[in-house]
Amino acid sequence: MRDLGPLLRPRIIAVVGASSNLRSPSGKPVRFLRESGADVTVYPVNPVRDEVAGYRAYPDPSALPEAPDVAVVVTPGSAVIPAVEALAERGARAVVVITSGFAEGSGDEGVAAQRRLREIAGEHDMVLLGPNTLGIHDYARGIPLSFVWYGERPIDDSGAVAVVSQSGSGMTSLCDRLLTASVPVGFGVATGNEADLTVVDLLEHFAADDSVRVIVTVFEEIREGARFIEVCRRLRAAGKPLIALKAGRTESGAAMVKSHTGALAGAYPVLRALLRQNGVIEVEDLDEVPPMAAAALLGAYPDSGGIAVVTNSGGAAALAADRADEIGAPLAQLGPETREQVRANLPEFAQGRPVSNPIDVTAQNVKRPRAIAEIAAALVDDPGVGGVLVALASAGGPDGLAWVDRLIELARASPKPIVAVILSGQESEGLRNRLRAGGVPVLSSPAMAVDTLHRLHRFGASRRAAEAAEAMQPIPQDPVPLPDDASEFTTLHWLREYGVPVVEQRLATTPAEAAEAAEAIGFPVAVKICSPDIAHKTEAGGVALDLKTAEEVSAATERVLGAAAGSAPDAVIQGVTVSPMVEATLELISGIHEDPTFGPVVLLGLGGVWAEVLGDVTMRGLPLAHGASEGMVADLQGAALLRGARGRAAADPAALERLVRALARIAADHGDRLQSLDLNPVAITTSGEVVVLDAALFARPPVTPREAR
Amino acid sequence: MRDLGPLLRPRIIAVVGASSNLRSPSGKPVRFLRESGADVTVYPVNPVRDEVAGYRAYPDPSALPEAPDVAVVVTPGSAVIPAVEALAERGARAVVVITSGFAEGSGDEGVAAQRRLREIAGEHDMVLLGPNTLGIHDYARGIPLSFVWYGERPIDDSGAVAVVSQSGSGMTSLCDRLLTASVPVGFGVATGNEADLTVVDLLEHFAADDSVRVIVTVFEEIREGARFIEVCRRLRAAGKPLIALKAGRTESGAAMVKSHTGALAGAYPVLRALLRQNGVIEVEDLDEVPPMAAAALLGAYPDSGGIAVVTNSGGAAALAADRADEIGAPLAQLGPETREQVRANLPEFAQGRPVSNPIDVTAQNVKRPRAIAEIAAALVDDPGVGGVLVALASAGGPDGLAWVDRLIELARASPKPIVAVILSGQESEGLRNRLRAGGVPVLSSPAMAVDTLHRLHRFGASRRAAEAAEAMQPIPQDPVPLPDDASEFTTLHWLREYGVPVVEQRLATTPAEAAEAAEAIGFPVAVKICSPDIAHKTEAGGVALDLKTAEEVSAATERVLGAAAGSAPDAVIQGVTVSPMVEATLELISGIHEDPTFGPVVLLGLGGVWAEVLGDVTMRGLPLAHGASEGMVADLQGAALLRGARGRAAADPAALERLVRALARIAADHGDRLQSLDLNPVAITTSGEVVVLDAALFARPPVTPREAR
Repeated sequence: MRDLGPLLRPRIIAVVGASSNLRSPSGKPVRFLRESGADVTVYPVNPVRDEVAGYRAYPDPSALPEAPDVAVVVTPGSAVIPAVEALAERGARAVVVITSGFAEGSGDEGVAAQRRLREIAGEHDMVLLGPNTLGIHDYARGIPLSFVWYGERPIDDSGAVAVVSQSGSGMTSLCDRLLTASVPVGFGVATGNEADLTVVDLLEHFAADDSVRVIVTVFEEIREGARFIEVCRRLRAAGKPLIALKAGRTESGAAMVKSHTGALAGAYPVLRALLRQNGVIEVEDLDEVPPMAAAALLGAYPDSGGIAVVTNSGGAAALAADRADEIGAPLAQLGPETREQVRANLPEFAQGRPVSNPIDVTAQNVKRPRAIAEIAAALVDDPGVGGVLVALASAGGPDGLAWVDRLIELARASPKPIVAVILSGQESEGLRNRLRAGGVPVLSSPAMAVDTLHRLHRFGASRRAAEAAEAMQPIPQDPVPLPDDASEFTTLHWLREYGVPVVEQRLATTPAEAAEAAEAIGFPVAVKICSPDIAHKTEAGGVALDLKTAEEVSAATERVLGAAAGSAPDAVIQGVTVSPMVEATLELISGIHEDPTFGPVVLLGLGGVWAEVLGDVTMRGLPLAHGASEGMVADLQGAALLRGARGRAAADPAALERLVRALARIAADHGDRLQSLDLNPVAITTSGEVVVLDAALFARPPVTPREAR
Repeated sequence: MRDLGPLLRPRIIAVVGASSNLRSPSGKPVRFLRESGADVTVYPVNPVRDEVAGYRAYPDPSALPEAPDVAVVVTPGSAVIPAVEALAERGARAVVVITSGFAEGSGDEGVAAQRRLREIAGEHDMVLLGPNTLGIHDYARGIPLSFVWYGERPIDDSGAVAVVSQSGSGMTSLCDRLLTASVPVGFGVATGNEADLTVVDLLEHFAADDSVRVIVTVFEEIREGARFIEVCRRLRAAGKPLIALKAGRTESGAAMVKSHTGALAGAYPVLRALLRQNGVIEVEDLDEVPPMAAAALLGAYPDSGGIAVVTNSGGAAALAADRADEIGAPLAQLGPETREQVRANLPEFAQGRPVSNPIDVTAQNVKRPRAIAEIAAALVDDPGVGGVLVALASAGGPDGLAWVDRLIELARASPKPIVAVILSGQESEGLRNRLRAGGVPVLSSPAMAVDTLHRLHRFGASRRAAEAAEAMQPIPQDPVPLPDDASEFTTLHWLREYGVPVVEQRLATTPAEAAEAAEAIGFPVAVKICSPDIAHKTEAGGVALDLKTAEEVSAATERVLGAAAGSAPDAVIQGVTVSPMVEATLELISGIHEDPTFGPVVLLGLGGVWAEVLGDVTMRGLPLAHGASEGMVADLQGAALLRGARGRAAADPAALERLVRALARIAADHGDRLQSLDLNPVAITTSGEVVVLDAALFARPPVTPREAR
């Protein structure tokens, strides 16, 4: 891990290109440092002035009286490289290049200049942020390294939240929103063009920084897939939620990213699957970040139980229940003891009725507002409850807001998250502030609160799954070498060695051999041409289905061999394969896909035309947790079909698990050569068996030791 | 339409049960009236005090010196009915019953008391709001009829937005949010238990109130479906957007509503389809209401063109594009002239590049902030643009905020909506306020802005579609009487008379007749038992498929007749039907469903097991707009399949249109007797023909004139 101390905790700061016009972008960094009152040494570098903003200025980096920890570079484009070279020579440990006009839009020259920046940093063991970065905001110590700064507001200096963004406006927008929502932001860092330091470097640093408890990142492209996933895992293990917003998820969004930064966004579905698999809390909009960060700071990540809602607004209760159903967040089933404790706190007219969740204390609550806190306490103690939402309208009463302190106390001691929504009321602003000051997140609506609690739950469940998986020892097995040719027969044979449930298949070179094989297998059978050179067998006349007698098999074999020879005269024909007809009630697809950023992923989806139209496919990266297939099935829109909806047999869960585990082993063994492996179709039979009927393997040629050198 | 003037524009107000404890719920209404300083006459009614809050009080309603326009009733439960009776006698024109404990939770007694309230109102031609209502907030005139009031804040008195809610907390929460977002709320009305006045009455009133331009409603149950839809249409025609939030959309939400109000929520999918069909802007969360209301107040509802985005943040541009793709909102394709005008306002480095939407002026914009407004002006003039989003980070510059006034001027004159997002910046709060004061909605995020513009576009498109449909004259046709029996044969025959494309089917009573029919139709054929008494033909052994010769048909007919006689000895057997085997590449379902609130709706969906699992069905109420089938197809997840994805033939659009129009005619002709009509399956053949293969009709017996009386 690289040492980012000089960049993020500097004592001596140079600003190269500092303008004496303190309202201009190149004058603002020094001005903000001056106004911040931070206890740091500031050296403006300006070729013609000997003073900037009250600091003594120096004509160039070599003239600095001491080596800076960090230098902020705001010189015009052409002067950047000489400045960075001079800073490196002067012993600067870190550089922030704010100047733009590099790889993001100035053609080959810009790309070359950016590469040179990286070289200089590498040669001098210096870390370099940017170019085209908005810089760094350190709100905990009050140090701006930027031409934008929001430090004039009152700041909670605990610095518990770090923001890491590629785009400058992403960084400033998130810091602005978080500060407005009273969330204690420590750092905001924009990585810009990432000539040297990337989002992943920053995440790695903050993962190890004990003062940071929650990290927010907004990015357009992840360049180092494996390192990124490793950092995500480390954050999950450390119990530090990573909240991620990806820009460029769709075709139009990715096109925008490309024109904006030149970055080629990877395939979003793969990224999304891997974020989810590794416990990253993904959000899709800036508005979702502040509530999510506030709730994540609670540090309570239940891995079981549902959401419990207590409110004095029936409408809010219904809206919370709606959202829970719509996003698949379970509502808690309350235990009998909890129901009794709740009932004791309900108004008289509710005494004769069953207690269920959400709990509506009704407007009658105005007579005894403390009941809300008492009910919340009972809910927290119920093992079926994983999180509590308290939603209130007009919550004052004769006792004032005394009950609020009880709720704050409860939230502090609770191992389960408690969040609040204040719907309205003359006292609402004061109530919100009091709750926030007490550490209870106050969210904007019942729906937002349910979203937030559900995401905390998913983070908790991901942690538990990861712990369980890590506790299991995989059994080491020797790799089965990749087959020499990629015919269906060879590929299925190879898959069988890996334990994949493939259809029985016999190779025959003559009509008589084929008839004999069919007798052994049992009718009806399929006969298919076997050749590594014929990928599209049906089009080549190479397939005959549903053959019911030895005579039909013999005749079909003759026909298939003749057609193949006619349509592909140069193809190597190994013969025909004979296999039983398998009656599928459902067709799946499965296999391995190689992502350019993240490497091989295992996929599972619905097959046939519906799958093509609906795109109902899910993915997992390596290593696969035990029981992964269950989660993969749950991801599919058609999950109910695999679980045996409408009287059909369920797809054998153990067989599905064997299938995806075998694929994971193949990906681990052959990831360096595998381009893709497509199992299509994977039949689910009437009795629920899982049988791979066809497979196509695409591999790169082996790299010989000579070439590898 | 009932006259709500005395309720909503009262000059003389009585408060019955007014407490002299002005901090209690029954003391607050008089206190708020006093504090409001409204120019109204207030008469507290209190049996023991002769003064409340400085007003002279009266012992009972009969003692009032003049008949009140409206009386607010806050007496304890048992005193409500005598008070309302006395008010009616004293000539009150309207009553607001705030007291709770009626049908919402106090058993049969409460229900009976609520019914009595309605009777009193009916007998005296008085309007009654409630019981269990939070009352009325009139922010335009500053008059509270409630124990909650937010009138202490500065209010825009244009009163352009009306809020109508069943739940009190829904009303207060929305008023609170809208006022906080500087949206000019006129009225907030809570209808409570709706003993007399309903949400629909209030919507009808505000539809006719010229000062109201946008209406927001949150409700749990609509009781008068046809009237509600009629009001929605009137609002659409008047160009007044109705923004609706339904609580109780899902199973858990509906259960909550039921326990909260006793209301049985209707089927949400039907409601959702009808809201959409009739131009209602549905939102799913309280947070979506203020931005939507602010944008709707622009009064600009484009019915064509896509969304154009101009920003100085590449990240915001990507997030906006992502959201547009994710919700299916088209991004505008800019014309060549627009692209030239845009280019002229882009910084130097962008000059050599193609101009596309979203437009990123980059951080360079700081040098010439006015460019943003110039580009927005060019966008508004492009016929391909239906709405403009201006998203800015740190938008100040050497010219200050002068460009903002240009944008405000543009937004005022534009027939297309212009909305803004201020991402961050030291000047952001001032900028937001300046834009809002100028009438430019300022939304919280690029995603929220795209959602909002897309909804305005849908409202505009719905208006255009409605106008087009109204301009067409339906051709009056005589109804085809409902068949006397509901056998498949009879039903299909009847459907054919309505122009529904049904499979050819011949009735045969003997094996020989069946064979003859098959020869005439052409092989292969299907033979099915024909009996009004056998609904499940396959289970009764009454179906034989894929018969290829006359002999097979003859034998199958004998078998089928025998099996039917055996399994259903009492059934009337009309014979067998003979029909051609139709090869379907896709199966649909269609028909008519009767909703208890909204009456008959026409439905269309994907058939087979996928449809059952995915529930991919869409609906339309009557009357159907011309070209409705196109929109119905577009609603389906599997739309691509019907349009001919993956080399298959598209389902004939004209045939689909004929199908749904015939169903609409049937529903209009027989809605009084029809319970449901299920066409299943509707085959799409390899050549794209649409053929109904089977149909089941469920109708109520005809009401004879005697019974009807």
